[in-house]
Amino acid sequence: MPHAPSRQDALDSIIRRLGHSFEGEIRIGGNYVSVVHEGHTAWVSGQVPRVGDSVVVTGRVGRDVTLAQARHAAEICTVRALLLLRQSLGSLDAVSRVLRVGVFTQCEADFTQLSEVADAASDLLHAVFGEAGRHARTSVGVYQLPKNASVELEMTVATADR
Amino acid sequence: MPHAPSRQDALDSIIRRLGHSFEGEIRIGGNYVSVVHEGHTAWVSGQVPRVGDSVVVTGRVGRDVTLAQARHAAEICTVRALLLLRQSLGSLDAVSRVLRVGVFTQCEADFTQLSEVADAASDLLHAVFGEAGRHARTSVGVYQLPKNASVELEMTVATADR
Amino acid sequence: MPHAPSRQDALDSIIRRLGHSFEGEIRIGGNYVSVVHEGHTAWVSGQVPRVGDSVVVTGRVGRDVTLAQARHAAEICTVRALLLLRQSLGSLDAVSRVLRVGVFTQCEADFTQLSEVADAASDLLHAVFGEAGRHARTSVGVYQLPKNASVELEMTVATADR
Repeated sequence: MPHAPSRQDALDSIIRRLGHSFEGEIRIGGNYVSVVHEGHTAWVSGQVPRVGDSVVVTGRVGRDVTLAQARHAAEICTVRALLLLRQSLGSLDAVSRVLRVGVFTQCEADFTQLSEVADAASDLLHAVFGEAGRHARTSVGVYQLPKNASVELEMTVATADR
Repeated sequence: MPHAPSRQDALDSIIRRLGHSFEGEIRIGGNYVSVVHEGHTAWVSGQVPRVGDSVVVTGRVGRDVTLAQARHAAEICTVRALLLLRQSLGSLDAVSRVLRVGVFTQCEADFTQLSEVADAASDLLHAVFGEAGRHARTSVGVYQLPKNASVELEMTVATADR
Repeated sequence: MPHAPSRQDALDSIIRRLGHSFEGEIRIGGNYVSVVHEGHTAWVSGQVPRVGDSVVVTGRVGRDVTLAQARHAAEICTVRALLLLRQSLGSLDAVSRVLRVGVFTQCEADFTQLSEVADAASDLLHAVFGEAGRHARTSVGVYQLPKNASVELEMTVATADR
């Protein structure tokens, strides 16, 4: 009987579909960190759709950027968050539950499909974690994001005993 | 000696005042959930002023929507969050403390009364929970919200032992 | 051998540099509180750059307000958050880790240096807490903030046993 794909396999498959390379350690500068792990909770800093040194989806959704492109951006943000969690926790299997996801979309004044952008992130989390990936979520449309990114995503997860 | 009204009684009274029916289960679609309950904390997904299938307060506060209407919207968001918590926890009495509330108002560029919008949510929480309802709060004005909602509210609460 | 400056000394030094007096208790109105302390976590409500009764940095960053002024605003917000934590916890030494900081900047449509605004807050936290001050962070640009404030900052910290 074939066994279920591991979370890592599921993530690798998603990364192949997205068509970007996420090789190498993800570094962030400044006096903050990408993941804080304290007790049984880990907080991931807001992620923009950066690949290597470039933010690959920039501009205002509903004017410069389509819904499909914004969803792609949300997927890249989510992949980055998962890679950072894996880097911090050692394995995605250390995640016992995705607790909360915040999705910020830099949008045009009349762009109201913010849930549809965030759904791409939620679907990806479900593909990787199954039921443990079903999270509380807040989606809002903001005026501007760092480096003109079209989407930013933050995540809080529960971790297993260590 | 008359006993204090229960939290449920207080909420029922508020719902009657708001003049909307919140009958039936609140459903959300997609690969996220309305409430995540993990350990002694519950996270409620961002709620818009939806009643049944309709978002009942839409548009930009300070242009299409008055402060009074925005406060009404904040109250509906809060009621929804409480109904979802009750649905998830079994009773509002399982809430030991409201920890944090985030209030996002879709506003006009020069609309600065964001605290006044959020006060309507805070007052409602105090009416239902008393001292246990006094929470930390963040209020911001955003460019757009899902489905053109005028207000979105997210909540985190502490829960009693289970 | 000179001993390391205490957290309180570091904060006092920063306050002198900022050139504002933060004497007196910080009060907030309404049915919410500035700090909720529950278990080993404390949530600080969103702080604007208020000194006494005035918000001292107002307007839209990138149009009315420079990056340097916005960074100053972020520092004032952070000082306020720390003073509120000290007021609630008794001492900054009760903070075992800064977990998460959210920085909202009221900005012009094309102002993308939101991380640079937030860096001022992160640097301040590192100056006060050292490694314990390195946090997860989310920075977004919003359309409007309470009382036309240029920056708003919220914080979550872990606390030592009590």
